[in-house]
Amino acid sequence: MSSANYTIAVDAMGGDNSPAKIIDGIDLFLKEDNLFFFNIYGDEKLIIECLRNKKNISEKNYKVIHCTTKIENEDSVRNAIKIGKDSSMWRAIESVKEKQSDLIISSGNTGALLLISKLLIKMIDNIDKPAIAGLWPNNKGTSIFLDLGANIEFNKKNYLDFSKIGAELFKVIFDKEIPVVGLLNVGSEEIKGHEELKNSYNEISNQKNNFLFHGYIEGNEIKNGDIDVVVTDGFTGNIALKTAEGTVNFINTQIKKIFSSSLFGKICYLISYSVFKKIKKNLDPRKYNGGIFLGLNGPVIKSHGGADSLAFYYSIKLSAKILRGNLIKKIKLNFENE
Amino acid sequence: MSSANYTIAVDAMGGDNSPAKIIDGIDLFLKEDNLFFFNIYGDEKLIIECLRNKKNISEKNYKVIHCTTKIENEDSVRNAIKIGKDSSMWRAIESVKEKQSDLIISSGNTGALLLISKLLIKMIDNIDKPAIAGLWPNNKGTSIFLDLGANIEFNKKNYLDFSKIGAELFKVIFDKEIPVVGLLNVGSEEIKGHEELKNSYNEISNQKNNFLFHGYIEGNEIKNGDIDVVVTDGFTGNIALKTAEGTVNFINTQIKKIFSSSLFGKICYLISYSVFKKIKKNLDPRKYNGGIFLGLNGPVIKSHGGADSLAFYYSIKLSAKILRGNLIKKIKLNFENE
Repeated sequence: MSSANYTIAVDAMGGDNSPAKIIDGIDLFLKEDNLFFFNIYGDEKLIIECLRNKKNISEKNYKVIHCTTKIENEDSVRNAIKIGKDSSMWRAIESVKEKQSDLIISSGNTGALLLISKLLIKMIDNIDKPAIAGLWPNNKGTSIFLDLGANIEFNKKNYLDFSKIGAELFKVIFDKEIPVVGLLNVGSEEIKGHEELKNSYNEISNQKNNFLFHGYIEGNEIKNGDIDVVVTDGFTGNIALKTAEGTVNFINTQIKKIFSSSLFGKICYLISYSVFKKIKKNLDPRKYNGGIFLGLNGPVIKSHGGADSLAFYYSIKLSAKILRGNLIKKIKLNFENE
Repeated sequence: MSSANYTIAVDAMGGDNSPAKIIDGIDLFLKEDNLFFFNIYGDEKLIIECLRNKKNISEKNYKVIHCTTKIENEDSVRNAIKIGKDSSMWRAIESVKEKQSDLIISSGNTGALLLISKLLIKMIDNIDKPAIAGLWPNNKGTSIFLDLGANIEFNKKNYLDFSKIGAELFKVIFDKEIPVVGLLNVGSEEIKGHEELKNSYNEISNQKNNFLFHGYIEGNEIKNGDIDVVVTDGFTGNIALKTAEGTVNFINTQIKKIFSSSLFGKICYLISYSVFKKIKKNLDPRKYNGGIFLGLNGPVIKSHGGADSLAFYYSIKLSAKILRGNLIKKIKLNFENE
């Protein structure tokens, strides 16, 4: 029996270098926070191999549940559902449905994770569509950004639902009573944007919500940090996020190129090494690892497939906040009387 | 009479610090390329004041056409059309319609510039909608990115038209025979994206075009530089561009913050000053100044409202390439037999 307060189900087989990075991530996490129990789903032999010599993982912190298959990144969502019932992902999700776990984390196939979660854990009453939310660093701290790609088609109820859901998530993670919500658009004037967006602007303006409505926000304003929750449709959100990631990568490449293009530049880089290390640490994308699936009856966290153990550790840390903050219950309260 | 090969109409009153920056930009340009004549529209007194002591602008290079009003950035497009007939912007556009100028540049109100251009210069036959294209730096050079916000609603013909138009622009600016075109999407697989996008993917795949069709491209791939022309709808394009601009700004702020947070950092910055200057020069957004309105019967260039004289110079340089490459004629050839 476990003395832990919360139980997290982990799909140990998804993403690169699994299950090693998953177990290392759990080890890092348990070192600083020992009140969690992990149901670890996957290839028992491989997992037990990885668990050897882990200083912070004791028997009271985990159980390994052997699964005979895994869902690959290349699997179509349809195929994953058809053949995936014995997979580590499926069974980890199922354990949330069956209340054996409080939350599930996977680094595997995003589409499959979303659809199997929807199938097993089901949507919260009065929420039509699930959203994927992420953390977005800005000049004052961190924003919540959604939807990152769960929904290509969007209607005015989705904008309102996602504003409410995103606000609850922000409250739980950053402990702010009334978060500020903005809708991503091509201009800040009320008349800008497409019909669906304008309709939702009016609807959101005309009612009392669990957030402060800022109105529209443009892409270049996300960085200012005045908006806590940035809401957009999944098509735009996915492209905006990936374009921002690409831009960070582009700037890095350009800076490296110029510092290494001359002997003087190389010397400057060596002298400034500790400063660059600090910049790298501050902007480390691993800190923002974790796509949060929202709108479901249980919390589902998607860790980046390419994430390493430290990034996986951050996604567990995020999960811990979501569990301690009782996110799902708080979201449900917003949709009970609809 | 002028010995110039091309005549450019300039709205001298749009944007910040006009007309001073406009005249300075023309002066910078004429210093290296003297075969252009400028029809300068705006407040004659102010313009002549600015022209004083300009070394590279001689009387054979310009004519000032006095206009009694100007369109403000705050003017609604509807209002601009109603009251703007004597404005510098309107009359500069009109001079292209009346074949007194070959191209028009303005730093003014984007919406008004687009609509008045459409009204006076008109669309090329068989093109439904105008696009705004821009230059996007990448690891291998520069891409063309469109639409930056002219069209919020998009259909499959628009994607195809904009691919063709963008390809001709790339050919003229970068002298590449068969540019590679990609459609921005949330994944690279054929099944991803919304219906309109999937339909256009099929249509573009099934016909011979003036470009090589790469298929879909994700936001983080723009930076790689393998795609010459990135096509998307105006809503997504505007948000992607502004998010990228915001991200560059965010990284700059973070780097500055950390270098200036300690004495050692400040010393490192001073030592590396020349290297940072080179990075700043390489990534200078002024080099990419100029939104190119495409699909009209004449070339229209939008210089950034906040652009300075150097940025305005770059937009004239871009205009020169467009004129020398005979862009409009080349675009028209693609739509003649539709």
